[in-house]
Amino acid sequence: MFSRLFAAPVEVSAHCDLPCGVYDPAQARLEAESIKAIIAKVADNDDADFRVRATIIKEQRSELVKHHLWVLWTDYFKAPHFEKYPQLHTLFNEATKLAGATGTKGEFDAAKADELLAKIAEIDTIFWETKKAA
Amino acid sequence: MFSRLFAAPVEVSAHCDLPCGVYDPAQARLEAESIKAIIAKVADNDDADFRVRATIIKEQRSELVKHHLWVLWTDYFKAPHFEKYPQLHTLFNEATKLAGATGTKGEFDAAKADELLAKIAEIDTIFWETKKAA
Amino acid sequence: MFSRLFAAPVEVSAHCDLPCGVYDPAQARLEAESIKAIIAKVADNDDADFRVRATIIKEQRSELVKHHLWVLWTDYFKAPHFEKYPQLHTLFNEATKLAGATGTKGEFDAAKADELLAKIAEIDTIFWETKKAA
Amino acid sequence: MFSRLFAAPVEVSAHCDLPCGVYDPAQARLEAESIKAIIAKVADNDDADFRVRATIIKEQRSELVKHHLWVLWTDYFKAPHFEKYPQLHTLFNEATKLAGATGTKGEFDAAKADELLAKIAEIDTIFWETKKAA
Amino acid sequence: MFSRLFAAPVEVSAHCDLPCGVYDPAQARLEAESIKAIIAKVADNDDADFRVRATIIKEQRSELVKHHLWVLWTDYFKAPHFEKYPQLHTLFNEATKLAGATGTKGEFDAAKADELLAKIAEIDTIFWETKKAA
Amino acid sequence: MFSRLFAAPVEVSAHCDLPCGVYDPAQARLEAESIKAIIAKVADNDDADFRVRATIIKEQRSELVKHHLWVLWTDYFKAPHFEKYPQLHTLFNEATKLAGATGTKGEFDAAKADELLAKIAEIDTIFWETKKAA
Repeated sequence: MFSRLFAAPVEVSAHCDLPCGVYDPAQARLEAESIKAIIAKVADNDDADFRVRATIIKEQRSELVKHHLWVLWTDYFKAPHFEKYPQLHTLFNEATKLAGATGTKGEFDAAKADELLAKIAEIDTIFWETKKAA
Repeated sequence: MFSRLFAAPVEVSAHCDLPCGVYDPAQARLEAESIKAIIAKVADNDDADFRVRATIIKEQRSELVKHHLWVLWTDYFKAPHFEKYPQLHTLFNEATKLAGATGTKGEFDAAKADELLAKIAEIDTIFWETKKAA
Repeated sequence: MFSRLFAAPVEVSAHCDLPCGVYDPAQARLEAESIKAIIAKVADNDDADFRVRATIIKEQRSELVKHHLWVLWTDYFKAPHFEKYPQLHTLFNEATKLAGATGTKGEFDAAKADELLAKIAEIDTIFWETKKAA
Repeated sequence: MFSRLFAAPVEVSAHCDLPCGVYDPAQARLEAESIKAIIAKVADNDDADFRVRATIIKEQRSELVKHHLWVLWTDYFKAPHFEKYPQLHTLFNEATKLAGATGTKGEFDAAKADELLAKIAEIDTIFWETKKAA
Repeated sequence: MFSRLFAAPVEVSAHCDLPCGVYDPAQARLEAESIKAIIAKVADNDDADFRVRATIIKEQRSELVKHHLWVLWTDYFKAPHFEKYPQLHTLFNEATKLAGATGTKGEFDAAKADELLAKIAEIDTIFWETKKAA
Repeated sequence: MFSRLFAAPVEVSAHCDLPCGVYDPAQARLEAESIKAIIAKVADNDDADFRVRATIIKEQRSELVKHHLWVLWTDYFKAPHFEKYPQLHTLFNEATKLAGATGTKGEFDAAKADELLAKIAEIDTIFWETKKAA
């Protein structure tokens, strides 16, 4: 993946908050994968202190997922994208909720982490479609 | 206002990320008012260092506006709200964009700050309607 | 409340760290109300993970209360205020302690949250008196 | 200095926000020394970008000074200290103001940095007196 | 890339600070690409306020590069890795310096950003070799 | 200690990220002492909520230790230092690991905190040798 991006720097266009134009749903995905891994670790470890640490870190990683997704929703996606993909608002709203109290923050539930990763994958697909179209 | 909330703690219902249930668009509004005041100060002061400091602080306050609005959009508002207020997604998306590179981050423009405050006022109206209805 | 402030922007005078001049004890109060709500939620929920999450969030919200109060004490209030209100130093010192280890950080005690809210209400009263006098 | 503290761990008593009991005005002083050094560097360097970077970092370091001092004022010092040192409230209030808009944040003025360091030195003297007395 | 990781979750092994085991030099690379894009934007835009904003954001992005690299160096890489790749310490030390005052923080120099990206690419190559070997 | 440093400001030379030149391993040491004190407090207190708070704070303090050490390793120490002290890379890598999952983050183990403090003391010795030699 690394070499692909290095070989194709032109695919980085300008939509960020400087704007600098570098976005990638991989940032949200990596944090969501971390959450999934944390949940698996806790399932294999019944030490009480470990569970507390896992809760602290899961809280932080979930917040990072939300932040990275919010940045994409506000800073990268524009009005024409929302017209072309009418499901996009709901997709982002549901994805960020899945990283909150009713999702990965609130529970140690691998299914919630999988749902969150699936939503991020949907966003990722649309994101790269719009990059190609740009 | 303070005494009103003190007199009516029951109006604080449960929708936050614990969930704790305390939300108020006033948090976003206060930061937006700070941005407006910063822009006015810079208009009255041509010291170069002051303008740099104003840019730093305007950047931070704009980010806080975005954060407070994102929290409302994801954590407070639920599917039934989005059905009842179909403009809500666009309203939040535009409001957070107004606190970004094409809005208060990118310029020292009092009109942008006013637009941002007007969007927050629209959100505030809907917010309190939904609280009353809850 | 929102419309009142919108109608009277002149009441926002200049004392902040730019200085931008926008202060409001409501920022500290909202975090303290969040703490009170968290304590109530924990009293109604004996899930161990929930209690850990509540502890994490209560710690953060308490720190925010302290921060918002410190900003008021250092950035908003000036020597003439401390002369006119000789109790102000002690009031702020006790209020910030009430958001610390011997207060809302250290315990799930609704009475501590109420004491903290009462102190913030005292600060709020003085704050608005000084705004009117300015 | 390092070996002295290692040789005398008993001088670390319990007053922090866990409470863990480790305090040292050296934390505030180091940030204030950094501010002083930044001001000296800018006096020797007329590159515009460098001045902007210096402003950004000076803003952060000044905020850290304020934070470390606020922690001492709220978390370490207790009612009996304020009785014994009636100047303590004013000393902390003035010191934190000196790290704000009217002090090291607002200007590149070595005299302000020296005033701030002198206030921190006064606090440091009182701090170590109270530690010995504990 | 996304589908590859989804198809091969087993390649995520356990070395993080929970430990959760999810690492990827892409996090550092994305921030470094952002820095490179910021430098290009400033070269095309001579607005003074824009340059200040670019400096603020470049400072933050550079700090994020350093942080992501430090996490890899301390949390992911272990003693056997340092034995097998004796250049690794120097590589990380030089890479993090390239994101500091003598690198991308200190200048708007595209060559520095390229050097930084090249160092991250070297780290990335070693990283994925060690993942395969694990 | 304070007066000694005040009397010898010339010993502060220029190597920081502005660069401002103010470094002191005391910053890492104070956080490590805090961790040691937290572990001792928990050993004397079997309240479950207190242990959770201690875990939260220990996590933060450990992260601060890592951060302060990383800054020294990247920003203060230069190539000639690493030549003169070939153990320096390993020393910093082990010290930062001791503040992580396999060290003070992962356990309430006073021996780990002592090991961490001993590593910081080694770094401190080398640091002050290099300052004298500068």
